[in-house]
Amino acid sequence: MDKKRKFASGVKMGVDYYPEHWDSELWEQDIQLMKITGIRVVRMGEFAWSRLEPSSGVYEFDWLDQALDLFHKYDIEVVLGTPTNTPPRWLTDLRPDILPVFADGSVYHPGVRGHRCYSSDSLNIYGSRIVERMAEHFGKHPAVTGWQIDNEFGMIDCHCPGCSRGFREWVERKYGTLEAVNREWGTVVWSGEYSDWCQIGPPHGGSPHQNPSYLLDYARYQWDEVVKFQHTQIEIIRKHARGQFITHNFHSYPQRLDQYQIGKELDFAAFDYYPNTSPDKQATGPYSGALSLDVTRGIKRRNFWIMEQLSGPPGCWFPMWRTPYPGFIRAFAWQAIARGADTVVHFRWRSAVAGAEQFWHGLIDHSNIPGRKFEEFAALCAEVNTLSRKLRGTELRHDAAILFSHEQLESLRIQPQVEGMDYYENIKDYHRALTKLGIGCDVIDWNESLDRYKLIVAPSLYLMNEEIAGKLERFATEGGTLILTSRSGVKHMNNQCVMMPLPGLLAKCAGAVVQEYDPIGGDVHEIVDNEGRTFACRQWCDILSPNGADIVMRYGGDFYAGIPAVTVNAFGQGQVYYLGTHPEEAWLMSLFSEVASKLKITMFPGLPEGVQVTVRTGRDRSFLFVLNLCREARKVTLPSAYPSLLYGESRGLELELEPYGVDILEMR
Amino acid sequence: MDKKRKFASGVKMGVDYYPEHWDSELWEQDIQLMKITGIRVVRMGEFAWSRLEPSSGVYEFDWLDQALDLFHKYDIEVVLGTPTNTPPRWLTDLRPDILPVFADGSVYHPGVRGHRCYSSDSLNIYGSRIVERMAEHFGKHPAVTGWQIDNEFGMIDCHCPGCSRGFREWVERKYGTLEAVNREWGTVVWSGEYSDWCQIGPPHGGSPHQNPSYLLDYARYQWDEVVKFQHTQIEIIRKHARGQFITHNFHSYPQRLDQYQIGKELDFAAFDYYPNTSPDKQATGPYSGALSLDVTRGIKRRNFWIMEQLSGPPGCWFPMWRTPYPGFIRAFAWQAIARGADTVVHFRWRSAVAGAEQFWHGLIDHSNIPGRKFEEFAALCAEVNTLSRKLRGTELRHDAAILFSHEQLESLRIQPQVEGMDYYENIKDYHRALTKLGIGCDVIDWNESLDRYKLIVAPSLYLMNEEIAGKLERFATEGGTLILTSRSGVKHMNNQCVMMPLPGLLAKCAGAVVQEYDPIGGDVHEIVDNEGRTFACRQWCDILSPNGADIVMRYGGDFYAGIPAVTVNAFGQGQVYYLGTHPEEAWLMSLFSEVASKLKITMFPGLPEGVQVTVRTGRDRSFLFVLNLCREARKVTLPSAYPSLLYGESRGLELELEPYGVDILEMR
Amino acid sequence: MDKKRKFASGVKMGVDYYPEHWDSELWEQDIQLMKITGIRVVRMGEFAWSRLEPSSGVYEFDWLDQALDLFHKYDIEVVLGTPTNTPPRWLTDLRPDILPVFADGSVYHPGVRGHRCYSSDSLNIYGSRIVERMAEHFGKHPAVTGWQIDNEFGMIDCHCPGCSRGFREWVERKYGTLEAVNREWGTVVWSGEYSDWCQIGPPHGGSPHQNPSYLLDYARYQWDEVVKFQHTQIEIIRKHARGQFITHNFHSYPQRLDQYQIGKELDFAAFDYYPNTSPDKQATGPYSGALSLDVTRGIKRRNFWIMEQLSGPPGCWFPMWRTPYPGFIRAFAWQAIARGADTVVHFRWRSAVAGAEQFWHGLIDHSNIPGRKFEEFAALCAEVNTLSRKLRGTELRHDAAILFSHEQLESLRIQPQVEGMDYYENIKDYHRALTKLGIGCDVIDWNESLDRYKLIVAPSLYLMNEEIAGKLERFATEGGTLILTSRSGVKHMNNQCVMMPLPGLLAKCAGAVVQEYDPIGGDVHEIVDNEGRTFACRQWCDILSPNGADIVMRYGGDFYAGIPAVTVNAFGQGQVYYLGTHPEEAWLMSLFSEVASKLKITMFPGLPEGVQVTVRTGRDRSFLFVLNLCREARKVTLPSAYPSLLYGESRGLELELEPYGVDILEMR
Repeated sequence: MDKKRKFASGVKMGVDYYPEHWDSELWEQDIQLMKITGIRVVRMGEFAWSRLEPSSGVYEFDWLDQALDLFHKYDIEVVLGTPTNTPPRWLTDLRPDILPVFADGSVYHPGVRGHRCYSSDSLNIYGSRIVERMAEHFGKHPAVTGWQIDNEFGMIDCHCPGCSRGFREWVERKYGTLEAVNREWGTVVWSGEYSDWCQIGPPHGGSPHQNPSYLLDYARYQWDEVVKFQHTQIEIIRKHARGQFITHNFHSYPQRLDQYQIGKELDFAAFDYYPNTSPDKQATGPYSGALSLDVTRGIKRRNFWIMEQLSGPPGCWFPMWRTPYPGFIRAFAWQAIARGADTVVHFRWRSAVAGAEQFWHGLIDHSNIPGRKFEEFAALCAEVNTLSRKLRGTELRHDAAILFSHEQLESLRIQPQVEGMDYYENIKDYHRALTKLGIGCDVIDWNESLDRYKLIVAPSLYLMNEEIAGKLERFATEGGTLILTSRSGVKHMNNQCVMMPLPGLLAKCAGAVVQEYDPIGGDVHEIVDNEGRTFACRQWCDILSPNGADIVMRYGGDFYAGIPAVTVNAFGQGQVYYLGTHPEEAWLMSLFSEVASKLKITMFPGLPEGVQVTVRTGRDRSFLFVLNLCREARKVTLPSAYPSLLYGESRGLELELEPYGVDILEMR
Repeated sequence: MDKKRKFASGVKMGVDYYPEHWDSELWEQDIQLMKITGIRVVRMGEFAWSRLEPSSGVYEFDWLDQALDLFHKYDIEVVLGTPTNTPPRWLTDLRPDILPVFADGSVYHPGVRGHRCYSSDSLNIYGSRIVERMAEHFGKHPAVTGWQIDNEFGMIDCHCPGCSRGFREWVERKYGTLEAVNREWGTVVWSGEYSDWCQIGPPHGGSPHQNPSYLLDYARYQWDEVVKFQHTQIEIIRKHARGQFITHNFHSYPQRLDQYQIGKELDFAAFDYYPNTSPDKQATGPYSGALSLDVTRGIKRRNFWIMEQLSGPPGCWFPMWRTPYPGFIRAFAWQAIARGADTVVHFRWRSAVAGAEQFWHGLIDHSNIPGRKFEEFAALCAEVNTLSRKLRGTELRHDAAILFSHEQLESLRIQPQVEGMDYYENIKDYHRALTKLGIGCDVIDWNESLDRYKLIVAPSLYLMNEEIAGKLERFATEGGTLILTSRSGVKHMNNQCVMMPLPGLLAKCAGAVVQEYDPIGGDVHEIVDNEGRTFACRQWCDILSPNGADIVMRYGGDFYAGIPAVTVNAFGQGQVYYLGTHPEEAWLMSLFSEVASKLKITMFPGLPEGVQVTVRTGRDRSFLFVLNLCREARKVTLPSAYPSLLYGESRGLELELEPYGVDILEMR
Repeated sequence: MDKKRKFASGVKMGVDYYPEHWDSELWEQDIQLMKITGIRVVRMGEFAWSRLEPSSGVYEFDWLDQALDLFHKYDIEVVLGTPTNTPPRWLTDLRPDILPVFADGSVYHPGVRGHRCYSSDSLNIYGSRIVERMAEHFGKHPAVTGWQIDNEFGMIDCHCPGCSRGFREWVERKYGTLEAVNREWGTVVWSGEYSDWCQIGPPHGGSPHQNPSYLLDYARYQWDEVVKFQHTQIEIIRKHARGQFITHNFHSYPQRLDQYQIGKELDFAAFDYYPNTSPDKQATGPYSGALSLDVTRGIKRRNFWIMEQLSGPPGCWFPMWRTPYPGFIRAFAWQAIARGADTVVHFRWRSAVAGAEQFWHGLIDHSNIPGRKFEEFAALCAEVNTLSRKLRGTELRHDAAILFSHEQLESLRIQPQVEGMDYYENIKDYHRALTKLGIGCDVIDWNESLDRYKLIVAPSLYLMNEEIAGKLERFATEGGTLILTSRSGVKHMNNQCVMMPLPGLLAKCAGAVVQEYDPIGGDVHEIVDNEGRTFACRQWCDILSPNGADIVMRYGGDFYAGIPAVTVNAFGQGQVYYLGTHPEEAWLMSLFSEVASKLKITMFPGLPEGVQVTVRTGRDRSFLFVLNLCREARKVTLPSAYPSLLYGESRGLELELEPYGVDILEMR
């Protein structure tokens, strides 16, 4: 297909552009400058409904045709967003049922964005209509290569009458009878038993004390509604725009919606990437960003796009951030590519002069005089375009993966276990320890196949079922190393505790059970290894009773001093670690280092703080990305001397990186 | 009466159990284990309305009969809760006026618990009906010894139409005319005068700037409504279940409702006791707990029950607490008994696997495998059962009392006087100072007779009337020592300031007046005694002018340096202290120590931090409870060597207590 | 006119008094004591609607006549407040459209005060009626010299249907067509284009993400409505009470409404002054207070009244403040006079015994026994009365002014630029630096003429138009020194960014442009002068490119080290500073000191911390006020020895001031 040809045509740079925000006389000079700068992609249209359909059924596509023609003239491809994130005022006036309703009964008023309930019939009717007209009209335009559905989906927790009805039907489809609902939700507690279907609805009032099984299903209903909403648009576009790809721009992880379900129908995933510009975030921000990129790559388990990349200080309804330091824009664009982005679209060409996002700065400031940031961006475009074809078709291949699960995220949000424990923050800790060791890892849905991997890190698989427990057992049996943690196997899939010793269905492969636990929260405890070395741990202490497993660490204090805190169990050809507590980074790094050595997983030990490495591998060559993501210069010692794609000659075993310095080395 | 026999039958242990939460096949094995463990009481039923009356007028009592029969078979007595805390969904569907309405007009939706306005006619109709059926049906069951009304009453500040009407009628009954209302509430301020009864209603909008006289009466209306709501149920139960006692489980002091009015119709009070398990709370938690127990004993001025006692880490919609340290469960159960509990019911037998309270841990974890906590509990049951008959009929007899007043609590909540001043926290300070000296004290309603006491501590009697002022004067005249503090006598009973020098009606007995005051809040000032020793003080500085009283302490700084801060007045046979500021604990302890010596009040000076002592006295013997309520071992020096009920032989003058160690000594 | 004679009759003292709060038998003894104390003015009536019109159309003026007669008997003048701040209950009952509606749709319920939408037709009908009756009846009373309109106007952000309609009409009047609205608000962003007038209304829901142009116009609409509301009352009073002045009591700056528009129709402005009594606020409170007084003087650019001055600890729905230290009441009354107050009315005669303001203490405590505070006040009255005629007609004449703009205040509130930057707090910083140098300055509306001044400090003129830019240019051209700062010239008047290099329309006179900026927020950076001295700076760093201007300071770090941070441009006869960052006080003081020297602006260098000086100048004499506004004694070195109005003889060059000590010196 056409779109595949385009999509496969190498790594490229783009910008977000809003022709409707600017006098049309500015368009061509903007596009000329884009062309000169080396921009090859533009995204537009995702908020333009009021311009495309200024009143019901009246379409004005000329202006966009004119803009598309200009982009085509300069050979810049265009991704069109469907504009359903911002229903125009005539529509919310005509069909107020489009507006979401909050738990307190108040309405999400128009005037901002995202003021649409995904489940609203009216939204689906009018949204489908504008999408269909756009797909018909623009679907064959030679400039248009693809589509973005809506913009930055998010959980709304809508309580509108439509959601009330929709959720009720969803529950009935899932459970069939009220008897089953009452049993699976455990509504007998506090006399919450439903005696009539009409009693089921969204959690009006928003109390966090609601039944957790019910709240989890309410989240699942919403996940399904977003998927359904997207599906309708995808069907329409596929029908009218056959050669074009479809994506969606995810943002700000963790998102409460199920990105894996949403990802299923997309050609590839996209991400809006705003790495934190504050010097205070140097120590954690780039690692958190690395995780975001790995999460995005994991959605489709393939390369992805950045649909919005930071270009200047963000700021709007909140105070502005620091301006990106010299080199920041380049380094973080390369970070995205290094972790699987094939296209990086910067947000935005020029800062808006009107509206709420005036200070979400673009590459060019309001004055329209290109400055330092633009110059850095232009140099970056040149660099990327030079390497574009070399990097074409390369991708990341890892032996390690972290399992991520929206089921856990949501159920642990509903019932926070202990002060200081956060499912996603803990994943960040595991991921950062791996990243600091230069161990590449994927972050994948817990439902995915584990076949490719040698090492699986599976933090807090709090909900569990026999199928996944079986998959994890098979993974270990066949030689994999599996790392489990506290708060695993606690519940069945409908969010009720299991009447089994923890980690429940995983106790067999862990070879250990939890006798008791102490939710220590912010208190700092110690774990001790067999040589007497101590490490700090936090959040939770499972008091373990090995049942075949070996003891790796013991507690160093409290009434369970000397009792196992971490065990490892030989299971089939593999082994299963159980971490009964949340140890400090130094210990995690020593564990991962040991495991990686044993499993012969590639790593780059000794990386200085702030430096990240990844490898993109193609049919016959691999490229090592070495990124210094901090404001200080760094030296990296490499395993051997590789030629640099950016600087030509090999730079030896010792690589000197300037602040935010980048190098890309050809490994073979 | 039968119930009296049961109630007097010695100290005993129980658990909270929810047969409706578990497969009925589990029941008998649970009850067998209870029996083996030494459990003699079970509470149940207080949330079971939807199972007892699954639809309007359809009663299903068989399951509970079956459970009661089983308990009877194993000779375990049962306390039944009336289930009105959780109206079932069919009822809130049928009669939505049951649901409380918040100040902002939003409804307290069903789905959690406590979703019932005490004043709702529908609640009273349907609630009375189920209570009557239960009383008829279960009132003669041989296992049932008593009833708990509803569960954990609390102030709801309901703004429903029923409360609007009810409050209006209450105001009319109290004042008769609008003229009187306007005068007594002082509504002329800000033109708030009522010209029509219909203008009176709950404080819609919830502004804290409302008229304080009005807000206090709105609280009093609610107090009366809870009492009325309870009274209806009590009448029904007394009619059908003559031999059975009636109680209510209070919780989480201070409660804004008037526990003394609620207590009036009960046979005894009960309390839900969750001592804080965090090591950070060691220094204050057990003292705060001691106060809670003394408050509970003061409700009826007699021994009481613990209806829910901590069994494991609580946690639900909030993060879990620490697990109870070894010995914690035992020590705090003994603390409850030491302060007047005759029965201690642990919450709960087994942790719930479903619903919002899954992580409010019971004695047995979800796995249903009894562990450390259960073992400690079982040993405790054995211990209690051994001593049960010895302790029968013993009670606490004290020479000192602290006056507690819901009038002050509420009016000082409505108008916080100064940063850092909290009525109940101040009571904690006075109570802790007494407790650390081993001075037993009662905490009683300020309306009670003071005849039994030598020492009365009366913090901030902010509202005052002539009757109580007269009672306090008589107490002092007849030889008592009365301790008054700043913010006394400020207002009349309708929450208007008096046009008198402070402490208003108490100025005569204080022998001093307040010339001016400085609300110092968090600033730390100094007071100095006649020997030049200085102590810190906080919150408030009354600048005193003695009028017959002697000067005890003077201020050490600010423009009132040298001016009296604390005075003592010889009044009749007794003396009246006036504390114009809130001194640090060291000073309070020196004051109480001096007063106790003078009045020959028993004390145990020199107790180490964390150790509490109390005495339960019977017809011919007294038992000294010595409790180490911390994680470290402690040594206590006793006035003489007593034999130990727990360890037999006398352990000498020096008692060594392990962490959370307990001893009970026979004094004569 | 009569009122002018009264108004010009010298500096005087007053109290706020509420006859309706007290038994009428107390009135005459209160007034006698006022007379003895030296009180010459009383304000009353502003909350008395329910007493003046107890039911619709029924007027009871006798009681107020009686009170006025008594005041007249003792020759005390009376200012009457119109009572529209507190519509009585019969009126809100009859016409509930009077009640404001919040963004969330909830109603501002009666029961407190200020429960009235300025735009409500009903308020205007019933409010005008009571004001007309009062003006007719009391307008000729010999005791009444003037009127206060309503009480402490404030922005309500009302969302009632009346405001919805009113705002819509306002927008239509301003813009004429929806096309113009959409263009000027930039609604195309996020498809927010209006297609029908009925879509325009207040920002329901209250999201801060709304369009900033729209939000600014919504604020302007409210400004106009308050002015209109006031205008109606002023017209009525002017008609019936010709010889009497009209004022309004502003409070708590910054107020979001446009005080300059409100001030236009007043005879003079008044202010409610509550200097903070906490010792922790000694270092900043008196400077913040000085600014409040200068702001008040700037409203009409003439002397003013204090209508409420602190008399004791405030406290009501919030915890009480510290009591005023000895000398505090006197010192801050003199501070008000020193900065242009001609009358100081203390709030209040006696503390209220009823209602929500019971603990907003007056001069006399609830006991009605005058104490220390009253004695200090009485001595102050005597002192003021002694000097009253000498000070008559004197005023403050300054060479420096700070420009204040409600447009900037509101637009910077809508879009906070960076953490730690607050428009009014920054003005405080500039004002405090001037005050510490003893440089008197005015604070005036940015629309005012600048003719009188040599130095204009113009912080963050974020919105700008050609007219004001031209005025500033002329000011500099003609020899003035203009100080501009970062975030100037960013936007046009409808709150859209300009497509020009910053500072936009001010770039020409600044002689420099902003190449880029770094919103550093709370990070502390350095600026360095040509001698290498360094100073701290915060909030924002404009990276400047001089375009004719000289470099004053350069950045000391980050990637813009060495780049200009502050420039000065010779412009015509004058010069224009541009401060690209917010420097610390020491630097501001050195700048102002240098500029003042150059421009020969009077200053008093070397003032100790806590001491403030100002000069009031009359036809032939000037009076130097020297105020020690702290709890420690201070020594001030004066330029020459002046005779003291308070202590007679000259006290030499070195003036010793006790804590809160005051002196007033005759300069020539």
